[in-house]
Formats: sequence, structure tokens, C-alpha cells
Amino acid sequence: MQERFTLFSIGYLKKHEEEYSIIEILSKYEMACDGLREGMYIIVLCWFHMCDDKENRSLLMVHPMGDTKQPLKGVFATRSNSRPNPIGHYTVKIHKIEGNKIYIEKIDAYEGTPIIDIKPFLRQLDCPLSES
Amino acid sequence: MQERFTLFSIGYLKKHEEEYSIIEILSKYEMACDGLREGMYIIVLCWFHMCDDKENRSLLMVHPMGDTKQPLKGVFATRSNSRPNPIGHYTVKIHKIEGNKIYIEKIDAYEGTPIIDIKPFLRQLDCPLSES
Repeated sequence: MQERFTLFSIGYLKKHEEEYSIIEILSKYEMACDGLREGMYIIVLCWFHMCDDKENRSLLMVHPMGDTKQPLKGVFATRSNSRPNPIGHYTVKIHKIEGNKIYIEKIDAYEGTPIIDIKPFLRQLDCPLSES
Repeated sequence: MQERFTLFSIGYLKKHEEEYSIIEILSKYEMACDGLREGMYIIVLCWFHMCDDKENRSLLMVHPMGDTKQPLKGVFATRSNSRPNPIGHYTVKIHKIEGNKIYIEKIDAYEGTPIIDIKPFLRQLDCPLSES
């Protein structure tokens, strides 16, 4: 079975303003944004390129939130950026769209972070009714 | 800026039973699952390998749900499997964990689909309070 796949960036986290972060979509993918609207919530998947190295990608357990007083936990049970595939996941509101720039709620990823996918947030799929 | 990244599968969707789908984690990543528990909700990211070809990855607009009566829409505004990076996104409950097998709510991905990440579902991050 195939174990290795190729991802392409579809844009970059361009910069942070006081209130917003700005995603700049590569022009070749602009058409794929048709249907995105101000006020919508989207799931933004990004690639934590600063963690795309052997050391970070082979970390299997971490102290949650970097707090060494907390016991080690498997990375799949945490949101750590250090993980086998350093994919970041944000659910954010679109504030404004200007050409290939999507203004979203401010997120904590670095400027220049590659964006790899955008999906519409769908409450019925993405929010289980209860956690038991 | 780098435009191309390498993803590794961390497991596979092994098979579907009547009620459950089973994720089999590759043994080298088993430790990364420490902390996952029955009853937890997780976000499972997979790689729609059947759509990992030039044709599907260059589709930028689709008819939502394949319904040609609906107007074309950008793939980033849909959950289509055909998209530049064919990443699938499921939020599901863990029913049981047995060794490297995670039994989850049944999902509609094919058997053999590579799994690329698992994250804990966190309501405060993943469920915005209102969509306006």
C-alpha cells in the first residue's frame, strides 16, 4: 500500500493584521473559492512548515501545551504542531474576501504558513451533539 | 516559497463492520495514540487516494453532491473528494480501541483509504457558537 503522498500549497497565510489573518490564495486556485462568502465559517488546513523536519515529525509523545508538569501524551491525542504530518486545523469565520485574499479571524500560525485546503464548516458533520 | 510537501500515511481504514469502521494504525505510530480513549470524539483526516490523480486534483469547480441541476461551485466551498489535495475530514466517536485498531463510527470512505492524521475534537475550537 502506498505510504507517501504529495501535497501542494494552495495559498499562504499572508499576514496578520490587528483583527484578521489574511490567506492569499494562489491565482491558479482562485476559481476553487467560488461560493465562499463573508460570514461563512470554514475549516482551514495548513502545513506547519516550521515543524516539517525529521525531529518534529518523529515526535510521537509530547507534554500537552509544552507544560512539562503534565505527563507525556500521544500526539494524536493533542493538537501539537509536532506530529508525523504537521497539519494545522482551524475553524474560522470569513470576514471579507477581496480578490484572492480571504480575511479570517486571527489565528496563531506563522506568516508564510502554507495553506493546503479549505472546506466549508458544516455543523451537522463537524459538531457531534454530545461528548459522552 | 515551498509549494510541495510529503505526507505519510499513519494507518489505513481497514474495514467496515456493520456498525463501525476500523482504523488500523501502523505499528511505528502506535505510541502517538496514547491518550485516545473510548467515547472521545476525534477528527480523522484521510487521503482520498482514489482521487489522487491529475484529473481529480485539477478540478476546481464541481456540482455539489454530483447533482448537475445544482450550479457549479468552487471545491473549497464544498466537501467534494475531488480537490487539489484530496484530504478527507471526519469527526467521529471512538467506540473501542484494541491494540492498534481504533473502532469508530462508520464513515463513507473506501476500505484501504490512508489515514494521515488524528486530532482530538475540541468543542471550543471546532464548533463556533453561531453562524451568522
